[in-house]
Amino acid sequence: MKNLFYFLLFSLLIQNSVTAQSETPLWIKTIYDNALTSRQAYNQLELLCDKAPGRLIGTPNSFIAVDLMKKYLEDLGADTVFLQKFSSPAWICHSASASLILNGKEIKLHVDALGPSASTPKSGIQAEIVEVMSLNELRQMKKESIEGKIVFFNRPMNPTTINTFQAYSEAVDQRSSGPALAKELGAIGSITRSVNMNLDDFPHTGSVRFSDGKIPTIAISTNDAEKVSQALKANPKLKIKIKVDAEDIVTNTYNLIADLKGSEKPDEYMVVGGHIDAWHNTQGAHDDGVGCLQSTEVLRLFKETGMKNKRSIRVILFMDEELYQSGGKAYAAYSKENNIKNYFALESDAGGFTPLGFMIDTTNLNNPKLQEFQKLLEPYGIHFIIHGGGGVDIGPLKTQGVTLSSYRSDWHRYFELHHCANDSFDKINFREMQLGSAAMTSLIYLIDQFDLAE
Amino acid sequence: MKNLFYFLLFSLLIQNSVTAQSETPLWIKTIYDNALTSRQAYNQLELLCDKAPGRLIGTPNSFIAVDLMKKYLEDLGADTVFLQKFSSPAWICHSASASLILNGKEIKLHVDALGPSASTPKSGIQAEIVEVMSLNELRQMKKESIEGKIVFFNRPMNPTTINTFQAYSEAVDQRSSGPALAKELGAIGSITRSVNMNLDDFPHTGSVRFSDGKIPTIAISTNDAEKVSQALKANPKLKIKIKVDAEDIVTNTYNLIADLKGSEKPDEYMVVGGHIDAWHNTQGAHDDGVGCLQSTEVLRLFKETGMKNKRSIRVILFMDEELYQSGGKAYAAYSKENNIKNYFALESDAGGFTPLGFMIDTTNLNNPKLQEFQKLLEPYGIHFIIHGGGGVDIGPLKTQGVTLSSYRSDWHRYFELHHCANDSFDKINFREMQLGSAAMTSLIYLIDQFDLAE
Repeated sequence: MKNLFYFLLFSLLIQNSVTAQSETPLWIKTIYDNALTSRQAYNQLELLCDKAPGRLIGTPNSFIAVDLMKKYLEDLGADTVFLQKFSSPAWICHSASASLILNGKEIKLHVDALGPSASTPKSGIQAEIVEVMSLNELRQMKKESIEGKIVFFNRPMNPTTINTFQAYSEAVDQRSSGPALAKELGAIGSITRSVNMNLDDFPHTGSVRFSDGKIPTIAISTNDAEKVSQALKANPKLKIKIKVDAEDIVTNTYNLIADLKGSEKPDEYMVVGGHIDAWHNTQGAHDDGVGCLQSTEVLRLFKETGMKNKRSIRVILFMDEELYQSGGKAYAAYSKENNIKNYFALESDAGGFTPLGFMIDTTNLNNPKLQEFQKLLEPYGIHFIIHGGGGVDIGPLKTQGVTLSSYRSDWHRYFELHHCANDSFDKINFREMQLGSAAMTSLIYLIDQFDLAE
Repeated sequence: MKNLFYFLLFSLLIQNSVTAQSETPLWIKTIYDNALTSRQAYNQLELLCDKAPGRLIGTPNSFIAVDLMKKYLEDLGADTVFLQKFSSPAWICHSASASLILNGKEIKLHVDALGPSASTPKSGIQAEIVEVMSLNELRQMKKESIEGKIVFFNRPMNPTTINTFQAYSEAVDQRSSGPALAKELGAIGSITRSVNMNLDDFPHTGSVRFSDGKIPTIAISTNDAEKVSQALKANPKLKIKIKVDAEDIVTNTYNLIADLKGSEKPDEYMVVGGHIDAWHNTQGAHDDGVGCLQSTEVLRLFKETGMKNKRSIRVILFMDEELYQSGGKAYAAYSKENNIKNYFALESDAGGFTPLGFMIDTTNLNNPKLQEFQKLLEPYGIHFIIHGGGGVDIGPLKTQGVTLSSYRSDWHRYFELHHCANDSFDKINFREMQLGSAAMTSLIYLIDQFDLAE
């Protein structure tokens, strides 16, 4: 009896030790071998980019994208594929343009509307420009020097910040919060320098938050931001003309969900996802077509390699990460209503370049399992599993006690492509994308197999 | 007196401890801040790629390249800039083409000559194809099945090998040694599948070693390698026609050397370099224009930031890494003759993508200083300093007791560009290149400052 007790205890210990299971590294190699030789997801990403660019919530292309990916997931052999319907406000951008008025001539600029910009009258709006380098600088100005004018936020991303996501977060208040402040202080429009470290001609759009009414608000390419700033030095009374044609709607839309049933705990979910929507001006290859296809790869790789998932794998392609983040909120609400046990959630929404590592929203990074996981993935170039947030789409699950994680790939080129026409399929490298798919699958496998509890 | 002794001892200890010197991290930050905001080297790389593509030893463009870079180094304010002259065989490629003969028609293939291929008669050579997957497979064949034919080495790079340099070294014998074996066994020509993980239309050239006479020998794009292989399955008697027009010459040429004088040990050199030559079919942006400019950045960054170098910084732009590796040998011979003390040598010849780390040819990687260096560079994305060779150009210095090191950047895209027309300036990312320049400068600074001895 005593011997049996020790035997059972020993078996339990073995089972809970990651490296004691000699098949673990072999499964990881199997995942990578398959991912690096299968072009299925890469080809599907090309199709998505080609057939449904600019797939912002409520647009015809957003529905085409969902259809394309639903069929793809069904063909992969998911056990269940379904649409989680919800209703949300949306914003459709028809056109945006701007010109400097210089010596009576109009000089066209590379601009795009931020979402959800107000429309201008058909003839546009025209006013003097107030250039500032920060929201604080604007707050300290006299109201009368802002009223009736167009505010131009022109602080560049800091190129000396090594982590470009940090540099982005340090600059992006000019886009997300600047226009509302400009409106509050009496401006009739706003321009934000593209949040892009490079000097080029691409206007980078993005979301802007308004609370009490809105004004026409655009992004300008970094090259043109420099040009306007120079022109203002020569002529501080310089005027700009802005035209935006857009509309606010309310739409029914969907998160696309596909499950691969778990063998032991089918009612617990390992969630993995990206967002299916993309801004109106882009194919959205890196943001976030690649995250969608890396997520579907997790399902495909479990299925094709014959690895057993204890819990159900749930792939979610979230709608509307970009504009109102309504898809993430809708899935969290749906989970709450239906008492769904999401055990772990992993988001890929930071580009599909060479893998770097994972951020994980846990209080204990000294968890020896996480350290063992990192060691197992180090030979594949996973350099870190560090503390950090999960991402916009899975974020709302946090209050339900779900452990969240986000995948990080090499970030140096990402903001040169982000939210602009430059984010096209030809910027996706098959190998880099698939190293990410394999890394994500490996993490899901390890956490499903060995759990997170110490 | 005793107190003074302890004070001096303490000072000495402080001086030799890396992290105890609080200015060390500040200097590293200064290096990165400057590198990430100066476009001088990037612009010069564009000029080099634009004005002197195909700058293989002995070609007119190789001399243009040396002139361009000599002027650049003089303008940077190097203390000495000089040409180290030597004589070497060289090989000039005028043209190369090949066609499948299918049903009496010629189907043109994407090919290029390997260097130094023999020329064919003007009308070309034409013969049946013997496809093999390895040199061993060829060795085991009967001589009469090879004689008078053209051998086709068609083993792909292994896409599941994570380190692409390893995958390259596992495949490249088909290019470097295969043609000589084919000749020995009576073949009249050889074709090698491009050593490229991607499926595309670029033929990738490279060096081939012949010892006793040579045959016409070409590389074929991976797409066309697949096509020829398929066609052979349908028709094993398929013929291919190859034309190569090239000539062997002997040329005078140069390594370009620039020094920044050291403040304490000016007669000891911290060597940093890349190779200035590039294959006839390419701008040689990643291989190795970027390595040249990252090396000149080391000199520029020392000079512009005002960091003191104890030893002299010596930038060497080596001629002829590609064909006969004559530049590296010539500098080693020159060093020996002139009793030059090269303390440390760092080579950048593995692409200019996001930095990964350094390989260092030392017997003791547990050297606590190297570990401290790595920790100081970790926040900048230097993930390793591991044991490994220095590179082809500095390799010959090994027998003179020089510690050698090579810089490694993200390697996943590198062999898609390597030795082919795809290796053009537009594939260089400013930020990624300059992160490498800063990492190299930091390593040179740390080793010069704190030495390598434990």
